[in-house]
Parts: sequence; structure tokens; C-alpha cells
Amino acid sequence: MGKKSAKKSKKSKKQGATAKAAPEQAIGDALRVTPGFRLAELDPAATPGFSGKKKDAAKAMDAVREEIEDLQERLFAGGRDDSGPSILLVVQGMDTAGKGGIMRHVVGSVDPQGVQLHAFKAPTEEEQRHPFLWRIERELPEPGYIGVFDRSHYEDVLIVRVHDLVPPETWGGRYDEINDFEKAANDREIHLIKVMLHISADEQKARLQERLDRPDKYWKFNPGDIDERHFWDDYQEAYQAVLDKTSTDENPWYVVPADRKWYARLAVQQLLLDQLRALDLGWPDADFDVAEQQKRLAAT
Amino acid sequence: MGKKSAKKSKKSKKQGATAKAAPEQAIGDALRVTPGFRLAELDPAATPGFSGKKKDAAKAMDAVREEIEDLQERLFAGGRDDSGPSILLVVQGMDTAGKGGIMRHVVGSVDPQGVQLHAFKAPTEEEQRHPFLWRIERELPEPGYIGVFDRSHYEDVLIVRVHDLVPPETWGGRYDEINDFEKAANDREIHLIKVMLHISADEQKARLQERLDRPDKYWKFNPGDIDERHFWDDYQEAYQAVLDKTSTDENPWYVVPADRKWYARLAVQQLLLDQLRALDLGWPDADFDVAEQQKRLAAT
Repeated sequence: MGKKSAKKSKKSKKQGATAKAAPEQAIGDALRVTPGFRLAELDPAATPGFSGKKKDAAKAMDAVREEIEDLQERLFAGGRDDSGPSILLVVQGMDTAGKGGIMRHVVGSVDPQGVQLHAFKAPTEEEQRHPFLWRIERELPEPGYIGVFDRSHYEDVLIVRVHDLVPPETWGGRYDEINDFEKAANDREIHLIKVMLHISADEQKARLQERLDRPDKYWKFNPGDIDERHFWDDYQEAYQAVLDKTSTDENPWYVVPADRKWYARLAVQQLLLDQLRALDLGWPDADFDVAEQQKRLAAT
Repeated sequence: MGKKSAKKSKKSKKQGATAKAAPEQAIGDALRVTPGFRLAELDPAATPGFSGKKKDAAKAMDAVREEIEDLQERLFAGGRDDSGPSILLVVQGMDTAGKGGIMRHVVGSVDPQGVQLHAFKAPTEEEQRHPFLWRIERELPEPGYIGVFDRSHYEDVLIVRVHDLVPPETWGGRYDEINDFEKAANDREIHLIKVMLHISADEQKARLQERLDRPDKYWKFNPGDIDERHFWDDYQEAYQAVLDKTSTDENPWYVVPADRKWYARLAVQQLLLDQLRALDLGWPDADFDVAEQQKRLAAT
């Protein structure tokens, strides 16, 4: 790790300039789940830590795009020797909560060469033959990358719990397994950002309605989504248990009110930026003699 | 296929409106490699099929972004039942030719949920134990996706040929193997766009120089890149052979002059758009009874 810390201690002027905390950092503080948090008491239409409107959010997002680009490139550059930090953005939420929009508008604004995006579906037969974390482990980001999980290992204590897909003693032990798993990921310098997109049952109904009203949205609709609405309260309870048991000091949850899509996107972008800033990323030193290479190049 | 053709025959008004050929389509026609094409005669600073300047190119790119977004979503929607077309964009070029910029600016403007990007490095030991197309086959895009290869199976007749990494009789047989492989991909509705970014030796020198002048670019520099410059003519010859032997009617090459990065990005974006338009993509029909589902939803 000696080499790595040397790398990090070298910060360019630009880095120093961009590392200032912006007012939006308040968003992360407002959304972090701490003991006693009650999901039922958070208004899904609220905009914690942000006093602006939709158009202000768009401006705020544009304002930090370049900084994110710069920091992401530093992260990627640092991973070139197969060591160094990575980020893992975990996105959970009820159907229609806006996961796809986060992927398109927040993840989509990052250089695709530095992103490893994976959408977890119902486990395949092969996956079911392994412990539930097996398929997750395989998708953890490599050094330098921003990994993104659209759904995740948390489905194994959400849909699995709500529908009794395994016995309670099995899912009951998974919260501790997950905490241990995430700590082990931290040891590999994988920094998690765990996001729950929080919508109201009414907003979900409106969004499903839109999928039934517009032929260009039919493909997103699944009759099973309506069946799941009958389990709304069970899901909220399962989410509350997740937040109670797995929002740790090391790997806290952020619950993002998501009835307003523009706020959810701003918030997740801000959480990503906060994490990138916290890594205090410099540029890697040259692992060659610059003057010598300049001479060699000139001779060609 | 009955179901699929029914899908395609249903085009919305919007599709009809966007399918008009734009003047930029001239770019694809100008860049397509046909028999008798001589790489050495194409000026890497040229802008075939486009008479504008840098700022016009930026405007032209912005002007079709929404259409690409729309068509990409149709492509993705069509793949939801694990059938239907996909696209594979293959990007080749000398070091510093701008492959990374294409990934960032062209591929990066597409919804990351619909993109499968893979950068091929020197083959691993496991990969070397298999036929050269084995690792390529595994990365072919699934239905509905835009696959992107940053380098590809063509390295097996480029660097491999230039440095005699396998005997001539081995690489000599690969052109036919590649043509057959790509035809078999077509049979699976995989539509290839094969792009060679064409830069001059002088422009490469300037770009390497920049990597040696700027500490934030050191990480992109590899002393081996200078060694490779001594094989410049051999590489050009190997590329010419690729174009002669593998630019087929079904899977033609496009040679994109790339000394001007802005032109190369516009050109590749345009090639992608041309291919998306050619697929004539509608929206999938609902595979449920819309009225019945609306009633069910209202009852929740």
C-alpha cells in the first residue's frame, strides 16, 4: 500500500479547488439513515436538504458535471494497476420508483468506460444453487470503477421475505451476512453508496397508469406489478427492517424521497459526488522517466 | 418470427417522422469501404460527407441525440423477450486514435442500461488456450442491446500479424474465419458497424507528446506506445489487408478520418444513427389486455 498512499498524497491544484463542500452536501446529511429512522414518517414528495425547484435542480446537476467527470477519471486512473478504491452504488426501490431514470440520467452522465452496471433479475437456476451472495460477489466493481447495482442482494431480504421464498430462519440470518459481506468489501476499498428510492403508493399507481395509457410504455408494464401492490405494507415493513439492521456506520443507507423524479436524480448525483470527493483522489505518478520518454518520442 | 414481424410492422407516427434521411447520412456513404479502397490515399484530417466546422458538428450531434435516445429505447424494448435485433459497434484504431473519446462522447450519450461495452486487452492465459474467437463470442450483444467493442477480434490479424505472434498460416486463415463468424452473428440479428479510426503518424506523435507534458495524462502513457511507432507502416499494411479481406457487402468497414476528434465523433454517431434507422423499429405490442389491467389497477 506504500505506493498507493504516495499516489494519494499528490494532489494537483485543481483537486484542491474542486474539493470545497457545496451547499448541496446538505442533501447527504439529510438523507442518511440513523437509528430511530422511520420510513413511514418520511414524505416521499419532500426534498430534504434542497430548497430549490425543478429547474434549480437541473442547474445544480449541470454545475457539478465537470467535477464528477474529473474525479471519476482520477478514480479510474488510480485503478490502472489493479489496486485502489472503487465505488459501488446500490439502488433499491419499489417498482416504478425511478431506478431506470437514475441509471439513465445520473449513471449515464459518467464515462461508460469507468462504469460497471448490473441489473439483478430473479436468480437463474445456477444462481439458486449457490448462496445468495455468490452472484453479488461476482459483480463487485474492480479497482477504479464505479459499480452500479440496479437491485441487489437486498432483494434476498425484501421480495424473498415478503413472499416467503425461503424459510424465515434463512432470511433472518441474512442481515448479518450482508453486513459482514459489505465490511469485507470495504476492506477491498469498495465504498458503498446504498440508496433506497422512496415513493408513495399513489405515485406508483399514477406511474403504472401511465404505462397502461401510452403504447410506447406498454413494454415496461407487467401485470405482476399490480399483484405486488397488494403487498405494499409488507414491502414497507421489509424495507424498514433493512434500514434498521443494515444501515451501519460504515455502510449507511440513504433514503431518497422519489415522488419528484428531479429531486431523486439530484440527490443520487450528490451522493455520488460526496463519495468521490471523500476519496481525495490525486493523479497517479508516472511509472516511467518522463524526460527519457520525451526524448525517445522526439526521435520517432 | 411471426410475432416479431408483427411487432415491426406497427410503427407509431413518431417513428415515421424521425425516419427521414438527414443530410448527414452522406457521411456513411462517404466512409464505407468498397473494393479498391486505399487507406494510404485517405487524408486523416479530411471530413468526408460533412462541410461544416467543429461547432457545426457539435450542433449536428445535439440535433439527433433525442432521436437516438428514442430509437435505442425501441431497440431495447424489442429485446425484452430475448429475441430481436442488436447492434455491435466495433472500434479499431492505432494508439491515441481516439477510441476513448468515442466511448465517452458517442457511446456515453446512450442510456447505459442498453449498452454492453467491452474493452479487449491482450488475451489472458485462459483466453489463449481457446480459439481466438472464443472470447469474442462471449461478448456478443444480447437482443436489444448496443454492444461496443473497444478493440476486437481484428487485433488477431493486426498486432498478431505485425509481431508474428502466431505463424502466418494461422493468421492468414483468420480473415475467412472472421467473415464467417460475422455472418453467423448476422443470422442472430446482430448488426455490425465496423469502424477504423484513421490518424496520421504526426497526429499520434502530438497526442503522445501531450500525455508526456501533462501529469493528468501520464497514466494513459505506456513506453511501449513509442516502440509501436516503429511498426507504423506494418500496421497500415495490416489494416489495408483487413479492409481488403473483411469489408464485405454484409459487414462493411467504415474508415473514419480521426485527426479531427470532433469529426470522428460526429461520424461514428451518424453511423450508429443510420443503423438504428435502418432497423425500422416499432414499439412492442402489449402482451396483456390493456383495458383489463387498467380496471385491475383502478381497484388497488
